[in-house]
Amino acid sequence: MPDVLRWTGDALRFLDQTLLPGETRMLETRDYRAVIDALKRLAIRGAPLIGIAGAYAAVLAARALRECAPAAFREQASLALAEISAARPTAVNLAWAMGQCQALVSTTDDPANCTLQLENLAAALHADDARRCESIGQYGAIIIPEGAGVVTHCNAGALATGGEGTAIAVILAAHRQGKGIHVFVDETRPLLQGARLTMWELLRHEVPATLITDGMAASLMREGRIQVAITGADRIAANGDTANKIGTYALAVAAKYHRVPFYIAAPLSTLDLALPDGNAIPIEHRDESEVTSLQGIRTAPEGARACNPAFDITPGELITGIVTERGIIAPPWDETLAAIVS
Amino acid sequence: MPDVLRWTGDALRFLDQTLLPGETRMLETRDYRAVIDALKRLAIRGAPLIGIAGAYAAVLAARALRECAPAAFREQASLALAEISAARPTAVNLAWAMGQCQALVSTTDDPANCTLQLENLAAALHADDARRCESIGQYGAIIIPEGAGVVTHCNAGALATGGEGTAIAVILAAHRQGKGIHVFVDETRPLLQGARLTMWELLRHEVPATLITDGMAASLMREGRIQVAITGADRIAANGDTANKIGTYALAVAAKYHRVPFYIAAPLSTLDLALPDGNAIPIEHRDESEVTSLQGIRTAPEGARACNPAFDITPGELITGIVTERGIIAPPWDETLAAIVS
Repeated sequence: MPDVLRWTGDALRFLDQTLLPGETRMLETRDYRAVIDALKRLAIRGAPLIGIAGAYAAVLAARALRECAPAAFREQASLALAEISAARPTAVNLAWAMGQCQALVSTTDDPANCTLQLENLAAALHADDARRCESIGQYGAIIIPEGAGVVTHCNAGALATGGEGTAIAVILAAHRQGKGIHVFVDETRPLLQGARLTMWELLRHEVPATLITDGMAASLMREGRIQVAITGADRIAANGDTANKIGTYALAVAAKYHRVPFYIAAPLSTLDLALPDGNAIPIEHRDESEVTSLQGIRTAPEGARACNPAFDITPGELITGIVTERGIIAPPWDETLAAIVS
Repeated sequence: MPDVLRWTGDALRFLDQTLLPGETRMLETRDYRAVIDALKRLAIRGAPLIGIAGAYAAVLAARALRECAPAAFREQASLALAEISAARPTAVNLAWAMGQCQALVSTTDDPANCTLQLENLAAALHADDARRCESIGQYGAIIIPEGAGVVTHCNAGALATGGEGTAIAVILAAHRQGKGIHVFVDETRPLLQGARLTMWELLRHEVPATLITDGMAASLMREGRIQVAITGADRIAANGDTANKIGTYALAVAAKYHRVPFYIAAPLSTLDLALPDGNAIPIEHRDESEVTSLQGIRTAPEGARACNPAFDITPGELITGIVTERGIIAPPWDETLAAIVS
């Protein structure tokens, strides 16, 4: 496995995920705006990883400003943080990381020292996320039955986090326990993170896996070939409503209809309990061309319009349980979500 | 609109639908095996059109054999009919058309005359299907509410039939009645018949339409933007279980969950009442590469396995109504389906 994201001491080195699985190309930058660009075009993606990358982008911004007077540093660095924060609106992990950076920036009288503090913070968030992934895997394996067919959507693995992933960490833990599972991977249109990224990770770990189109999962459930569904999350509101990659809601509805348990795996940094429900979660709408073409090849006729919400909201009542680094929680969400962060 | 399929008097001329919407290329052949090839690679597709094309392929086969002695003609033509019938297993319309051809072939003592009869039969099936489409549109428009958001899957239009289509005929009729509808078109992975073909047809008819990925429809239903779902069908069993393009079942489940009515539009040639239920419908499984790549570009990593059932079964209990050329029928399917063909 190549490094997905690595701080070199003065630059951020990262895998360009848009080229996977065909090409494993590393990029390196000292410019925080290049990180913003990488976030926007999904070269770096996945809610937890977005937060980590944002923190390193903050370090790069601060390094460029560390010779400034304190007031100018605070002002300029704050603007940079706002710019980074706006790169992707839906995953709360980015706002969460930027909030912690902002707390350091707002109170500093020593730009050079603040820059070091930001560097320590980014490294801590990164290492911390790896540990969270490990715990999520350990707690989560219990939800995967022996010999289960497991369906997942998008990519919630090493390419999306600072460790082995969230949903994928659970799958890997169950696989390593010798449960004899088989994973069905939604290709996840429009950007095919399931086909390109999750299949790539599962092949490397030699987990038996079958790629399916997003429209097949319901049919496999009807045939009794899927026993559990698990995905990551981009933001979880106080009532359990969860934003995740577009198509997650359709999967959750199909799971409900077939009485297949539907789990979310996510670190607590994904919770946004200030929001009462999913209606308050901002949904990123991306360019129509992602839908009207596939891998750069135009598929729809010229003039065809498309809509392209990058995420949808799965209401809490469709979620069987949420696997976190502190254990698995279940409804009633208003109580259990509040309790786990207290 | 170019001719989708046309008999020239001694050859079959047809649009190669695999190249749409980028290129409008007509092919012409006097070889029934070239028609089989076109059916297999989906250059000609759509349940009713498959039946019509099969009938013309039978004419081509018979023309090549019409100098034979009657016994040899019956034997050779029957083999060709079996070969044509096997090109695609799921849509019953092909078997239905081949059955009618076989009845002529089995009883003939005059190959030249039988060839003419086959030609008349194919032309009749073709013209008949156009009339069936018209009736389906006329009967079906009533199910589309004023100002409705309508979702459809795959392509059940002029490119799939001898006329204006089945589901698309209903949509066009509602549009022409000035109902102010908006159509959401599932792109329909893996082969993108929605993006490539349905969007192309709707643009030509200037019907307001938005292309969506297959994972978006459930989310649009939750937002209240879809009031009715309608698709075509490849085969309908006696209890209403319906085979249609993979992903149809997931759409029907989402419709059920959101209390959105789900309709099938299909000519009676799609009924196969000899089959008690959907378990008896043969499901075509196509090559994995249709899921792991697009137009020669690999999207999944090397070594990735995929599954590729071309169709799924939507159980009768998820279907609100079936629009036929004799009117709209509703459950109980065992009674209403038997009655409409009697």
